[in-house]
Amino acid sequence: MKARIIVTLKNGVLDPQGKAIEAALKSLAIEGVEGVRQGKVFDIEVSAMDAATAEATLRTACDKLLANTVVENYAIEIL
Amino acid sequence: MKARIIVTLKNGVLDPQGKAIEAALKSLAIEGVEGVRQGKVFDIEVSAMDAATAEATLRTACDKLLANTVVENYAIEIL
Repeated sequence: MKARIIVTLKNGVLDPQGKAIEAALKSLAIEGVEGVRQGKVFDIEVSAMDAATAEATLRTACDKLLANTVVENYAIEIL
Repeated sequence: MKARIIVTLKNGVLDPQGKAIEAALKSLAIEGVEGVRQGKVFDIEVSAMDAATAEATLRTACDKLLANTVVENYAIEIL
């Protein structure tokens, strides 16, 4: 079973990497970009009986390793 | 206008970071994970007249800065 996990910074958490990308886009004369926030994506292959089991496994993976839940949100999508 | 860009490694490109995450999940006794590939996500706020213009801007941004199209694919989603 394939799944995609998207980890993003919570609102209000500073994102200097995003700011640097925004500045770089401006310096490349790419107009109209007003804000950038960077996150991570994990494409995961899980062996599980059903989607619920897979999601439970991935939730544990996020809480223990993939996301820092103090400053990051995560979203799990079973594909 | 809000948009999300997802940049992933092309098939066949080695992903040592993904392998490290996979090993770390195994060492945490999280069962059932058979493969991990890591990518990047960019949440971008664009000012554009319409979705087509926004997508053109973001395509330029991807080609010039956000993705290395030799080894990476990107997908643009206008939200």
